[in-house]
Amino acid sequence: MNKFMSNLLGSPYLRLLCIPLITYAFLLGVKAYAQEGPTAEHAVFVANNVWMLVATFLVFIMHLGFATLEAGLTRSKNTINILFKNTFIIAMGILTYAIVGFNLMYPGDFSIGQFFGFAGPWISAPEGAEGLIAYADGGYTYWTDFIFQAMFAATAATIVSGAVAERVKLSSFLIFATIFVAFVYPIAGSWKWGGGWLDQMGFYDFAGSTLVHSVGGWGALVCAYILGPRIGKYTSSGIRPIVGHALPLPAIGVFLLWLGWYGFNGGSVLSADPELVSLVFVTTTLAACAGVLAAMVVSWIVNRKPDLSLTLNGALAGLVGITAGADVMTPGSAVLIGLVAGVIVVFAVIFFDKIRIDDPVGAISVHLVCGIWGTLAVGIFSTNPDHSFVTQLIGVVAYGVFTVICAFVIFMLIKVAMGVRVSEEEEVRGLDISEHGMEAYPDFQQISEF
Amino acid sequence: MNKFMSNLLGSPYLRLLCIPLITYAFLLGVKAYAQEGPTAEHAVFVANNVWMLVATFLVFIMHLGFATLEAGLTRSKNTINILFKNTFIIAMGILTYAIVGFNLMYPGDFSIGQFFGFAGPWISAPEGAEGLIAYADGGYTYWTDFIFQAMFAATAATIVSGAVAERVKLSSFLIFATIFVAFVYPIAGSWKWGGGWLDQMGFYDFAGSTLVHSVGGWGALVCAYILGPRIGKYTSSGIRPIVGHALPLPAIGVFLLWLGWYGFNGGSVLSADPELVSLVFVTTTLAACAGVLAAMVVSWIVNRKPDLSLTLNGALAGLVGITAGADVMTPGSAVLIGLVAGVIVVFAVIFFDKIRIDDPVGAISVHLVCGIWGTLAVGIFSTNPDHSFVTQLIGVVAYGVFTVICAFVIFMLIKVAMGVRVSEEEEVRGLDISEHGMEAYPDFQQISEF
Amino acid sequence: MNKFMSNLLGSPYLRLLCIPLITYAFLLGVKAYAQEGPTAEHAVFVANNVWMLVATFLVFIMHLGFATLEAGLTRSKNTINILFKNTFIIAMGILTYAIVGFNLMYPGDFSIGQFFGFAGPWISAPEGAEGLIAYADGGYTYWTDFIFQAMFAATAATIVSGAVAERVKLSSFLIFATIFVAFVYPIAGSWKWGGGWLDQMGFYDFAGSTLVHSVGGWGALVCAYILGPRIGKYTSSGIRPIVGHALPLPAIGVFLLWLGWYGFNGGSVLSADPELVSLVFVTTTLAACAGVLAAMVVSWIVNRKPDLSLTLNGALAGLVGITAGADVMTPGSAVLIGLVAGVIVVFAVIFFDKIRIDDPVGAISVHLVCGIWGTLAVGIFSTNPDHSFVTQLIGVVAYGVFTVICAFVIFMLIKVAMGVRVSEEEEVRGLDISEHGMEAYPDFQQISEF
Repeated sequence: MNKFMSNLLGSPYLRLLCIPLITYAFLLGVKAYAQEGPTAEHAVFVANNVWMLVATFLVFIMHLGFATLEAGLTRSKNTINILFKNTFIIAMGILTYAIVGFNLMYPGDFSIGQFFGFAGPWISAPEGAEGLIAYADGGYTYWTDFIFQAMFAATAATIVSGAVAERVKLSSFLIFATIFVAFVYPIAGSWKWGGGWLDQMGFYDFAGSTLVHSVGGWGALVCAYILGPRIGKYTSSGIRPIVGHALPLPAIGVFLLWLGWYGFNGGSVLSADPELVSLVFVTTTLAACAGVLAAMVVSWIVNRKPDLSLTLNGALAGLVGITAGADVMTPGSAVLIGLVAGVIVVFAVIFFDKIRIDDPVGAISVHLVCGIWGTLAVGIFSTNPDHSFVTQLIGVVAYGVFTVICAFVIFMLIKVAMGVRVSEEEEVRGLDISEHGMEAYPDFQQISEF
Repeated sequence: MNKFMSNLLGSPYLRLLCIPLITYAFLLGVKAYAQEGPTAEHAVFVANNVWMLVATFLVFIMHLGFATLEAGLTRSKNTINILFKNTFIIAMGILTYAIVGFNLMYPGDFSIGQFFGFAGPWISAPEGAEGLIAYADGGYTYWTDFIFQAMFAATAATIVSGAVAERVKLSSFLIFATIFVAFVYPIAGSWKWGGGWLDQMGFYDFAGSTLVHSVGGWGALVCAYILGPRIGKYTSSGIRPIVGHALPLPAIGVFLLWLGWYGFNGGSVLSADPELVSLVFVTTTLAACAGVLAAMVVSWIVNRKPDLSLTLNGALAGLVGITAGADVMTPGSAVLIGLVAGVIVVFAVIFFDKIRIDDPVGAISVHLVCGIWGTLAVGIFSTNPDHSFVTQLIGVVAYGVFTVICAFVIFMLIKVAMGVRVSEEEEVRGLDISEHGMEAYPDFQQISEF
Repeated sequence: MNKFMSNLLGSPYLRLLCIPLITYAFLLGVKAYAQEGPTAEHAVFVANNVWMLVATFLVFIMHLGFATLEAGLTRSKNTINILFKNTFIIAMGILTYAIVGFNLMYPGDFSIGQFFGFAGPWISAPEGAEGLIAYADGGYTYWTDFIFQAMFAATAATIVSGAVAERVKLSSFLIFATIFVAFVYPIAGSWKWGGGWLDQMGFYDFAGSTLVHSVGGWGALVCAYILGPRIGKYTSSGIRPIVGHALPLPAIGVFLLWLGWYGFNGGSVLSADPELVSLVFVTTTLAACAGVLAAMVVSWIVNRKPDLSLTLNGALAGLVGITAGADVMTPGSAVLIGLVAGVIVVFAVIFFDKIRIDDPVGAISVHLVCGIWGTLAVGIFSTNPDHSFVTQLIGVVAYGVFTVICAFVIFMLIKVAMGVRVSEEEEVRGLDISEHGMEAYPDFQQISEF
């Protein structure tokens, strides 16, 4: 070190300069670190929470989709009854979910192996804003979590509603739906989404091909089987198609369901993560489109005419199919899953008619059959190598066995206690008059036999 | 201090090391403080503004909900007329709100006590992006504020539309609705949301149980009273129920209104504050669900049959009820408020029929009666100890007196000047033919007397 | 410098203090700079991407709007056919957009002048999360970009669907729509949005008055011309109005389209920029409202009765009109553009009837004529001085020439190869029975001649 340098560094003037510099640097550091106002992390949290609430209202509107789909695909004499059931289900579904469902599905601790747990009755948020926010690792508040999941809950029971339409006794169905949505759905759900045994095992169901759709579908199958077909559906001279009374309604229904699916699948990311949510939008859309085209072509070939109901159901088939793996599929796989779902749904509809399971709206074919397909498809197409076909199959079977047993026991008990089917006279007259004392279209002349 | 230490600290090499360290620390501090790119505060602002615009389009879709609800609950011969009125109201409501309403409702300064102020005609945004943003304390831009409030404005007049359906003269109603939405609603609104005397007093109305729903409801009551009942509604042999012509439409309407309410209440937080918006989603939903179940049970008991219209109106009753206090209620209180609203609405419908106020869609029962209930409920259940029952009552009465007087004077003046009711012949024939020269369902055979 | 100061600064104790201070300042600086967790820039990106996905599902629901609008404005015997076409179009439109459209519209490099380019078949995202995000300058991911644009794509073909309703041969239309949406729309679109020659020239079309609406409208004009009018529409005794079969449906359709337009225009900002998106909400809404009132008044004067269909089309006219310049208009200009559009649409409907171009839903008047008006209006009212009327006119003409030639060649080739119109018998019977073998309203008695 030369003399000049040594002097310079030793100079008291330099030292004098050092003091404010160090102080300023220190203060700047403190200021930047203290970050007045919100942090970027909080800003992302706000955006995440906005997205989860948007997803919530999108799932809500699916219930209108179910209502119009089911109402439109059945006869005008049962319209009020269907609308009534669907209005009831969302109200009862959300309230019971607040009372028991949410804490059955996300019990925290399981008391019976990894099969059952209950965090106590009624929802209760962590104290204060911080608790609400810290709750779910930056994705959403406690309230958002509850309300998003609550919107899902009622869906499972709504799926049953379509399959039992036009002949089920109203009060019996309301009781069944309440028990199904309050206990069966959340307990089954806890096995995967609540961190239970299937989750531990590596079973994957992103947004509910199995947990929501096949659970609803199994319930639909059991109830439709116990109820038996509508009068005049299966005759000695063959299957009589009973067509919907106002086809704009199912079109409205399917488009609204498709719309809602952007929340159903998009919200299942559980944050607004741009990469995942946008991928989910793409896979969800492509599967729906592929389902439409596949069902259209197949129905055109099979029936010699392009069938609107089946084509619309093709969209739902594709949507149910992609739901289990919407975040782990390439767009190409999504198209393939949708195409297969669209083919499956047409043959499933034909199959259930052949074995005389009368499902007025095709709910079993759409939600159960395509729900199974979608869950297994994760084992085939997932970009995540941890997903395995065998584990997926175990999940499918486990949900099937549990739901079938529960639905069977509940619905049979109700059947024994109070009956599940309206009288023949009431069915012929229509449930609107016999159950509600009103007509859905009193100003219009209807076909005499209606 | 030992010799070694003293030497070390005095060493010019150490001093040499200090210089870049200090400089680097200084530069880092500057860089962090200068924060290139947006601040976290701006990021939160963007998310807030996104949410407020989402809330805006949700409130917009409520107008379709009103249109289908009202059209479906009335007769097929008046369908075009109802759809026309509702289309007109949103267009006229928003334009007049731009011209005078917004600046009457948010005058900044009041020129007549705290009762009336006007910031001049037409909307005009602060200069530049900064002005737009600084405008509302980080929640939204000036434009967002205007358009969100504008969507609310037309609602009040739409509520009236339902109560006067099937007999009001079109041109007279259009004039009434224009004056009501351009002047009555925003002046009344300024008392609370514009910072007027009721705001000063501590009156609380979060999203408009009183400011929107009861204002609309009082207008509906006055107009229905002045108009008188529909021909054939109240006869010597009792009350003749005049039922809706297509029940899927009110179901669509109620679900869309419920959907829109997530924006109506959720947007009234005036930011995307995660804690508040998510709580509002929960309270809003639970109140609606409780309203559905209460109205269902009560109507089932009273009418011996479960009534779809009343059950649907139960949802609206719960929603109107929770609106005044959606952000200051526990979920439990929300359920209670919804239950009470659902009971009230059924008996209110019966009551107004008994006193021969003919309200085809139950608008007065839903919006006025449950609006009052919801406003008073804030005085009972609010988690904010500043809210008082007496102040809430004063607000309810003040809005009632003002709106009833205004609506009465306006509608009576129109009655004197040009009449408010179609001729008996026109009413029997239906307003679609008599006012619009068209039928809503020309392809369908209708019941002769229709 | 006095002795004390010199001693102080030279003191080893001070130096001892300096070491941790410097170190601490350094660490604080590093910490603040390193910014653990997300940056504010990322937070804005998340909010932007959320908004673009919201805009995506809003544009999606426009397809339900088109479906119900068209179904409601035509006769009940063609309802299934219309719903079927619209379901097909969205599915096929999005799939072909994934296969070729997106890469034709945004080719990156143009291979034939600035007129044509193709980035290869099928969508493929940049690698990894960073690639997805870096992709579009902070507004949205690659997937978001694709899915938002894909929702737009099908719109152009849907517009054609309305104009050819009630007489077009289903299979022929499906082929035409597929080619139109897969090739004509994206190639034309690349000229502006893909950075092609019209973009270079300064042509401005914010959200597609020309690129989407007039392209669809020209296609509609050509196809309606080639097809000829419906049987019985133009008779020796004059024009016979063929009215819609269920007026609630077009009301639902127009409100859903209006709703969707908040995504169509709002999403065209390509970010959640608070200033621009909120301005776009205001201009879009005001233009729609002005269109409603103008069409209402003009139709009332011309027809002596207020016409619901025309009033509803007035909303669409205003929306199409504002679309080209929604981000560069003052609210006042937006009202003016909407008013003019509302007047234009009524006279355009009359004009096309006079020259016997039969357009059952008024698609040509709404989308083509008001699309041209909106594009030219940018040259008149834009707040951006770079926009020029002449350039806008060149754009309008260029799109007109290209689309008319393409549509004509494609539809004529299909006509020659397989015919484009159903037989007279099939048309009279209705396309629902003749093409689909089903009725849309089997439970209702329909007017014999239907």
